[in-house]
Amino acid sequence: MDSRPTVEVCFTPNLYPLHFDGSDIIVVIDVLRATSAICAGLSNGVEKIIPVATIEEAIEYRQKGYIVAAERKGKVVEGFNLGNSPSSWLNKELVGKTVVLTTTNGTQAIHTARRCKHMVIGSLINLDALVTYLHEKKKNVMLLGSGWRNKFCLEDTICAGAIAEGLLATGDFRSEEDSTIASKYLYLSARDNYLGYLKASSHRRRLRDLNLNEDIKYCLTPNTVDVVPIYKDGIITA
Amino acid sequence: MDSRPTVEVCFTPNLYPLHFDGSDIIVVIDVLRATSAICAGLSNGVEKIIPVATIEEAIEYRQKGYIVAAERKGKVVEGFNLGNSPSSWLNKELVGKTVVLTTTNGTQAIHTARRCKHMVIGSLINLDALVTYLHEKKKNVMLLGSGWRNKFCLEDTICAGAIAEGLLATGDFRSEEDSTIASKYLYLSARDNYLGYLKASSHRRRLRDLNLNEDIKYCLTPNTVDVVPIYKDGIITA
Repeated sequence: MDSRPTVEVCFTPNLYPLHFDGSDIIVVIDVLRATSAICAGLSNGVEKIIPVATIEEAIEYRQKGYIVAAERKGKVVEGFNLGNSPSSWLNKELVGKTVVLTTTNGTQAIHTARRCKHMVIGSLINLDALVTYLHEKKKNVMLLGSGWRNKFCLEDTICAGAIAEGLLATGDFRSEEDSTIASKYLYLSARDNYLGYLKASSHRRRLRDLNLNEDIKYCLTPNTVDVVPIYKDGIITA
Repeated sequence: MDSRPTVEVCFTPNLYPLHFDGSDIIVVIDVLRATSAICAGLSNGVEKIIPVATIEEAIEYRQKGYIVAAERKGKVVEGFNLGNSPSSWLNKELVGKTVVLTTTNGTQAIHTARRCKHMVIGSLINLDALVTYLHEKKKNVMLLGSGWRNKFCLEDTICAGAIAEGLLATGDFRSEEDSTIASKYLYLSARDNYLGYLKASSHRRRLRDLNLNEDIKYCLTPNTVDVVPIYKDGIITA
């Protein structure tokens, strides 16, 4: 009997009930762009992020005077000043502040896993910091992709594959699911050229049409920040 | 506006409602081993195959005198003479006969898609015949993997990627979904060595433990048969 902790990939939030078996740590991933923005923001000095699932909740917070970021279909929602473009989260005016965030996919994935024991936020920009953190914990890990409206999404899967490979390569973790093997294979063939590999991906296409190429480049560049955002009782902090 | 027909991949039956948008042709894939057995059987001269979802239905048919194949968890179900090992479907005694079939995953996937306009059966052993058939039809195609109890499964995805690549390479089809891009990438890195690539896959491990290595090799060898099984009104014929 192999007693090493497991690392497994769940592609999308709708598959969470099928995969969840009491995993100790859930890593929520939304590379383009919610979890990259969260990592960028906390690394910039944002104090707290409150993820909410709906625009209605976001409006309530705005009425109470909070800074609120809201994105749907790749765009800042009308009436809000901030979306999920990581560059906008690097603004110095956000240092020390609490920001409320709602996005099309990422905050939905956080919402799905909200009752788990321990949730952290993953992206390519905090890849090594996260792998080091998870390796030290030596607990069962589930890597949860946000997908696009519950459909499989390539960049989240590649990021999950990168985290899985980082842990499996130490020899201290094991995996059993085909979703994990596939994510690892996809990461291994993507890692030398993320931008080229993702050229045809539906999400990248969607963002490119919105002139968000700079955002894409930022989100696909590994290890530019050193934070591991942790979700607890409805709040994300570094 | 690109008016070419689409080819898209749906990994597992539970995702069918999310992906189905009126696709003209559904290809059901269960490489290990239901759809490989169906292709082998029809190629051998079996006249008709009646797929049923439950053991109860299988027992009813047996009581009526039918030849019935039943598999669960990789093994022939107790009380039945035939399972889904393709080699057993090559038996000359089955020529000209009708065979009823129920399996853990493959017949469930057929059941899921039973109300579609046009269903065909795919595997690696009939890959080229199937690609030629689909190319001639020039209709929207969905490639439906059977998975393992609704979890993503590597060999079905690689087979779906092989079919997708075969159609996309002609330039007469297009795809939009990331699931299709990922399947294609996985196929392209697997195709030179299916056995090695799938070494760690959960399903292969499961069958190897049951001493089914010969079956695995047979199912992973492309283009050994020339049939395109078609499902219509509850019956599969060549």
